Order: sequence, then C-alpha cells, then structure tokens
Amino acid sequence: MDIYEMKSKLKESLSEERYKHSLNVMEEAVKLAERYGADTEKAKTAGLLHDCAKDLAKGKEEEFIKKYGIETDDIQRRSHALIHSILGMYIARDEYGVSDEEILSAICWHTTGKAGMTLLEKIIFVADYIEPGRNFEIAKKARIVAYEDLDKCVLLCADSTILYLMERGKLIHPYTLETRNDAILTLIRKGVDFSGLYAYGFK
Amino acid sequence: MDIYEMKSKLKESLSEERYKHSLNVMEEAVKLAERYGADTEKAKTAGLLHDCAKDLAKGKEEEFIKKYGIETDDIQRRSHALIHSILGMYIARDEYGVSDEEILSAICWHTTGKAGMTLLEKIIFVADYIEPGRNFEIAKKARIVAYEDLDKCVLLCADSTILYLMERGKLIHPYTLETRNDAILTLIRKGVDFSGLYAYGFK
Repeated sequence: MDIYEMKSKLKESLSEERYKHSLNVMEEAVKLAERYGADTEKAKTAGLLHDCAKDLAKGKEEEFIKKYGIETDDIQRRSHALIHSILGMYIARDEYGVSDEEILSAICWHTTGKAGMTLLEKIIFVADYIEPGRNFEIAKKARIVAYEDLDKCVLLCADSTILYLMERGKLIHPYTLETRNDAILTLIRKGVDFSGLYAYGFK
Repeated sequence: MDIYEMKSKLKESLSEERYKHSLNVMEEAVKLAERYGADTEKAKTAGLLHDCAKDLAKGKEEEFIKKYGIETDDIQRRSHALIHSILGMYIARDEYGVSDEEILSAICWHTTGKAGMTLLEKIIFVADYIEPGRNFEIAKKARIVAYEDLDKCVLLCADSTILYLMERGKLIHPYTLETRNDAILTLIRKGVDFSGLYAYGFK
C-alpha cells in the first residue's frame, strides 16, 4: 500500500480530528527525522499510522486483542490509551501492509515509550506530543526542546504525561517511568545539561 | 535493647534535627497505629529507627553494603535516600537488636513503599511524610487525609514524592510508582472515592 492509499484508508477509520492529528504527527516526524538523521520515509509512515487503532469500537478492540493473543497487564487492561498503540502495530501490519519492524515498533511504543528506544521510536513518541495541533503550554515548550536535544524532549514529554495522570488520579504505566529514567541516564552519559519540570515553569 | 537504650544510641548516631524527626515519626506512627488498629509497640520501634542509617558517612555506607552483600540497582546506587532505608533494616537488626520481621520490613520500605504493603509498612511510609516537623503545604493536607483513609494518603505521599523528583530532574525508583498504582487499585477495590493532585491544589 502506498502512502496515498494509506491516507485514504486511514481517513475512513478515524474521526476528522484524529485524522488531522495523524497528518500533523506525520509532518512533525519527518521534520524530526531530518533534524536527527533518521529515515524520513519510515518516519512518515509511522507518524501517519501511529493512531490507526485509536478509534476502534470497544467490542472491535476486544476482538482484536483475542485474535492476536495480546497479553495485557492490569494497567493496560484499564486503559484504551495504552492498548491502542499495541493494537496499532498489528493493524498497521495486517490492514496497511506495513512489514518494516522499525516502523511497527515505533507505533507500538508511541504512548508509553520504554528504556532503550531507537531513534525512530523516540521521534514518534515526541512528534505525537509536539505536533502543531497540541496547544497546551508544555507542548509549546517541548516543541523548542525537541529540536535542541531529542532525549531532553523525551524526558519532558514523559514527565508531563506522568504529571497529567497524577493530577487526575489515574494509573501510570511502569514503561512511562522507565522512559523518563532512561532519558535522564542517557543525558548524563551524553554529558548534556538538563532540567526538571521546574525549569519549564511548573509550580 | 529497650526503647530508652534505642533512643540513647540513636541520638549518638544522628544529627540533632534527624533525631527530632525520628521522635516525631515515632509519635505519628503510634497515633496512626491507634487509628487503624496496628500494633502500637511495633509502630513505635519502626518509627523511631526508620532513619537509623541515614547519617552514615559515605565510606561507612559502602562498607555496610559490601558487608551485607546488598544488591542495588542503577537508581539505588545513585541515591543515598534509597540506600539508607535498606541499610536501616540491617542496622536495626544488628546494632539495635530488632528481630521482628514486620518492624524490619517497615524500615526497609519506608522511602519507596511497594505494592502490597502491610499495615505497618503503610503507617511508617505515611508517618515519615506527615510528622509535624514537615512544613510544606502538601504535608499539611496529607496530615488530614492520613486519618481519613490510609491508602488515600499513601497515594498522595507517593505522588508528591514523584512530583518533587520530576521538578528537579531526578531519577524515580519504580517502587515509588508501584506504590501509587497499588494504592489506586486498592482504593478502587475498597470503593473509596479518591482524587489526583488537582484536588489538593496543584496547578
């Protein structure tokens, strides 16, 4: 399936707003790939398709989880936001004909991240957060940080997600914590100065 | 060793401020034990001794880690705040003659907490946070919540710790996240209404 066919199929599967977000993430991912020397074609596909399973009806979602034998933990089972990324990997493969493992993995990990992400995984994780449709204050700051140092932005995005969930009394997946701790250890190894949320105007 | 001997020995091992904090945690822990029907004598000992390893010199700390063959992970190795609780368990046993496993475990887990804490473990975790010497805004709120529902307070204390570390760009131990997620699942199971940080005046 070429990118035009993918777009056309995706448009049918998502709400208008979500489709627009997908195009935005695609464009942002390409820009980040150019900035950091990643494969722009892979970034384009992963960015476009990252949310391909997000608007599935609840029953359909459960059907796919069974079909693919996806094992979920206690926190994933309670969160559509976590499940849709994992499902997205299967849908991208089977419904959109994506066979590239790097692209599929970037779709799978775009919500929580994980320790030891590839460059493409980091790009999709960050692009989803900073695309121009995201209007909240911290996204605007993250948009600048993303082009300074990608790991600094991974830290900021993960921390911001943790804060969002804590404010609302929601469960937080251990992978999200792993992502921000790993970003800190990476920044220390690289010798890059970084800051916590204070520096971005929190509190 | 009786409680008077323990106090006298502890006073020699800690700074004046830390010793005062220890007495405060002891008193708070006894009050919480009375409120929730835990063993007040165990709460007294665990509260008093929880920080018994906190003022060890760096070299001494490393000596004890070797002596006891304590295995530490990447995050623990970088944090005295995490190590002192684990070491405290050994010091309480060998230097203060504490053999009660419940007390030792409450000392060991008082900084991070963990999933599935015992009542005594929760009491020491919370008492450390809310003792009257803690003057920050959120401790004052936690002090009220602690006597309404202990799990609600465990959630608030863990979230507040996570926020504190995120603000400063510090590593967060996975056990701390596990503690707050487990508190949420416990509250859901108990059918107790609870809130995220928003409700306590954050943001």
